[in-house]
Amino acid sequence: MALNKKPYKGTRDFFPADKRVQDFIFNKMKTSAEAFSFEAYEGPMVEEVALYKAKSGEELINDQIYSFEDRGGRFVAIRPEMTPTVARMVAQVHREIPKPIKWYSIPNLMRYEKPQRGRLREHWQLNCDIFGEVGRSGEIEILQLITHLFTSFGANSEHFEILINDREIVNIVFNDLMKIDEETSYKLYKIVDKAKKVKPEGLQKMISELSLEASAEDIFKKYLAIKDFDELFAFLEEVGFSEKGAGFKELADISAKIGLKDYLVYDPTIVRGLDYYTGIVFEVFDKNPENRRALCGGGAYANLLQIFNENPVPGVGFGLGDVTLTDFLATHKLLPDLSKNDVDIYLTFQSDKAVAKNFELASSIRALGFKSLNSLEPVKFKKVFSNAEKLGARFVSILGDKELEEGFFQVKNLSTKESVDIKFSELDKLRDILKA
Amino acid sequence: MALNKKPYKGTRDFFPADKRVQDFIFNKMKTSAEAFSFEAYEGPMVEEVALYKAKSGEELINDQIYSFEDRGGRFVAIRPEMTPTVARMVAQVHREIPKPIKWYSIPNLMRYEKPQRGRLREHWQLNCDIFGEVGRSGEIEILQLITHLFTSFGANSEHFEILINDREIVNIVFNDLMKIDEETSYKLYKIVDKAKKVKPEGLQKMISELSLEASAEDIFKKYLAIKDFDELFAFLEEVGFSEKGAGFKELADISAKIGLKDYLVYDPTIVRGLDYYTGIVFEVFDKNPENRRALCGGGAYANLLQIFNENPVPGVGFGLGDVTLTDFLATHKLLPDLSKNDVDIYLTFQSDKAVAKNFELASSIRALGFKSLNSLEPVKFKKVFSNAEKLGARFVSILGDKELEEGFFQVKNLSTKESVDIKFSELDKLRDILKA
Repeated sequence: MALNKKPYKGTRDFFPADKRVQDFIFNKMKTSAEAFSFEAYEGPMVEEVALYKAKSGEELINDQIYSFEDRGGRFVAIRPEMTPTVARMVAQVHREIPKPIKWYSIPNLMRYEKPQRGRLREHWQLNCDIFGEVGRSGEIEILQLITHLFTSFGANSEHFEILINDREIVNIVFNDLMKIDEETSYKLYKIVDKAKKVKPEGLQKMISELSLEASAEDIFKKYLAIKDFDELFAFLEEVGFSEKGAGFKELADISAKIGLKDYLVYDPTIVRGLDYYTGIVFEVFDKNPENRRALCGGGAYANLLQIFNENPVPGVGFGLGDVTLTDFLATHKLLPDLSKNDVDIYLTFQSDKAVAKNFELASSIRALGFKSLNSLEPVKFKKVFSNAEKLGARFVSILGDKELEEGFFQVKNLSTKESVDIKFSELDKLRDILKA
Repeated sequence: MALNKKPYKGTRDFFPADKRVQDFIFNKMKTSAEAFSFEAYEGPMVEEVALYKAKSGEELINDQIYSFEDRGGRFVAIRPEMTPTVARMVAQVHREIPKPIKWYSIPNLMRYEKPQRGRLREHWQLNCDIFGEVGRSGEIEILQLITHLFTSFGANSEHFEILINDREIVNIVFNDLMKIDEETSYKLYKIVDKAKKVKPEGLQKMISELSLEASAEDIFKKYLAIKDFDELFAFLEEVGFSEKGAGFKELADISAKIGLKDYLVYDPTIVRGLDYYTGIVFEVFDKNPENRRALCGGGAYANLLQIFNENPVPGVGFGLGDVTLTDFLATHKLLPDLSKNDVDIYLTFQSDKAVAKNFELASSIRALGFKSLNSLEPVKFKKVFSNAEKLGARFVSILGDKELEEGFFQVKNLSTKESVDIKFSELDKLRDILKA
C-alpha cells in the first residue's frame, strides 16, 4: 500500500503560505496580549488523564480526548484544552507570586472531533487569563483585550460583537424570581443554551415540559425576550433586583465609557459551562449572517484551583481558536496577501567562479540586517527576474564573471527597475538602498 | 489521592520567566533562518504510525514512539521527529514548486526517554532543510546558517565547533582502500561511532575482533588518526584518492574563504545514521570540557522521498533541540536576564473613582505603541514603586483623586526618578517620554 501523503484526519499541513497566515495571526495575538502586559507561558502537550478527569467535562473525557497508556503504565492524554494545565501551574506558584497574575499562551490542542467547517481535530488556541481577586475590573480588562485584538486585525463593530451575560443575573432570575430547584435549574440552563437555535414552537415545547408555575414561566419568557443592557436593567428595576444587578450595571457603564459600547451586546441566552463560571460569560460572534458562529468564549470563575484543594483563586479569561478566527478574517477580507515569501534581496551569480564571493556578499548583507536569498547555483540571466518574482524578493543582485573580476555587482530594485553598481568595498551603501 | 501538580515526567512547565528564555531562543532561530530566506512551515503533532515505520529507525519505533490507536481504529503517534512530516509535505508539492526549497520549523516533539540532563520526553527542535539539487553549495549554506545562528547568541569559536565528515570520504576508506564487505562495513561504522568514547585498548579490541587484513587495519587506524582538513587531504593524496575527495576539499576551501574556518573541524568519527546520509555529516559540539555534548546534528541525503516512491529529492539539513541548546547558552552565560516582564508603564490609581479613567489611559497609551499594565484595583501609594519594580515596569503612572479632578496624572521614570505631570488632553507627549 502506498504511504499516505495527506495529514492525519482533522489536522493540517501548513505550507509556507499557510504558515505565514498562522504567524500573522499569532503575532497579532502576542502583540495584543503583551500590550496589556500579559506574560506568555507554555506547558506540556501531554498531561496525566487524572488532571482532565478532575477538571474537564464528561463529553470531553468520554468522547473527545486522545488518551492512552504510556510505556511505563501511566495514563496520559494529549492536551484537549489549556485550562487544566494552567490550573496545575498556578497551583504550584499562587502562594508566592503577586496577584493579579496575567498570563497568555497559544498551545496546539487535540480533540477527537468529526472534522467540519470551523472544527478540526488539531487546533491552536489563544488562552488569556487574569488570576486573582480583581472583580469587575478584571472582567472589563478581558473585554477590552478581546476588542483590542479583533480591532487590531482591522475588524470593527460591523464584523463582530461580544454577546455577554452574567451568571449573577441568571441566578437572580432562576433562584430569586422563579424559585426553581436545582434539577429544574439544570434543565433550564440547557433550554437557555438552545433558545436561539430552535424555532419558537420548539422552545415553547421544551419550556412546557418543565411544568413551571405560570408566574415562573412568565418571568422566564420575559427574561429570554431581553435584547440589550437597557432592557435588562429596566427588567431588574421592575422586579426589584436592581441592587443585586449593580455590579453588572457598573461593568456595562464603564465599558461604555471606555469605548466598548459598540461591541458589547447583552444576551440572556449566553450561559456557557454550568459548573465553572460564576461571573460574566461571553462569546464573540461573527456578525456575517452566513458565518454566524462563536469565535471565542470565556468568562469569570470563582475558583481555578478547586481540584487541587488549594485556597480559592478566582479569575477571568477566554479561549480563541485559530480555525474559526482564520475563517472569520478570510470571510471579511482582513488577511493581507501572504502568498509570497518576504525576501529583501535575491543574490544570483553567473558561473561557478563566483560561488564563494556570493556567499560572502550574502553574509555581509545579512550583517546589515537584511534577508538574503542565495541562489546557491549559477542562474541564467534570463531567469533571474522571473525567479526573483516567484521568490518574493524586493531586490536582485547580479554577479557575472566580468563584475567578479572588476570588483563589483549590480543591484536592481524590482519595483522601480532602477539598477546600481556596488563595489565589493562599498557594501555599506546597500543599507540605504535596500531600506527603500 | 491528591492531584499531581507537577508536569508529566520528562516534560516542562514554562512559567513566564522560562517562556521568555524559550521565546528569546525561538526568535533567534527564526531570525537566523529568515535572514537566509528560509520559509517557516508547520505540520500536525500527530501522524499515522505507518509514516514513522517507513521512515524512522527501529529504536525509535520499538522503544521511543508515543503511539496508540485512535477512536476510529487508526494507528497514530505523537511526532517524535519532524523529518517524516516534512518528507510527506514535500512529496505533495515537489513537482510544482521551484527548487531549491528552503524550509524551517520549530515543532514540539515527544520521545519516550529516560529523562536525564540534556534529554527530556518533550522538546522543541529547530529543523532547517534545503531540498533540491544544490550539492556543495547547499551544504555550505547549511553550515553558514548554523554558524550565523550560534554567533547571533554571542557564541564564538571558543564556545562551539562543528565537527564534520563526508560520507564520500568514509566510502573511499571503507570501499576503495580497505575493500571490506557490507557486513564488516556495518560493524566498522559502529566502531567509528564509538571511537572517541572508548579507551585506546577498547578500540583496539573492537578492531581486532573484526580480523581485518593487516593493510586494511593499517589504513583504518591512519584514517581514525586524522585530526583536521589538512591531514585529511594529505592522506587522500598519499593514498591516491585526491580526485574523489575533491568535492569535500572544495567545501573546505570555500568555507574557509567565507569565515567558517574557525568553526569547522574535520572529524573522522562523525558518521551518523547509516542508511540516510550520503554527503556531509556533522555535529555541533560544546567546547566546554564539562559539557562536551552534541548540540545539533545533520547532513546531506540523496533522497528525502524514497518512502513515497517519488522521484528522488536530495537535500541537506539539521535539527537543533532546545534542551541542549538552552544548557549550552546558560553554561556560557549567553542568556540575558529575562527574569522580569517587559512593561513600559504600570498604571495605578488611588480610589475606585478613577477606574474608568485608568482604563482609558491604558488604552490611549497602548494606541501609542506602548505596553501598559493596568493595576485594575486601587494601589496604596506606598506600594506603587515596589509593585512596579516586581512587575518589570520602566515607568509608573499615578492617578489620585486630586489629579482626576484636575485632569492630569503623574508619570515617573523608575530609573532616573524624574516625574512629570501629563494632562489628559496631552497624552501625545507620552510618546517621547516613554521612548526614553
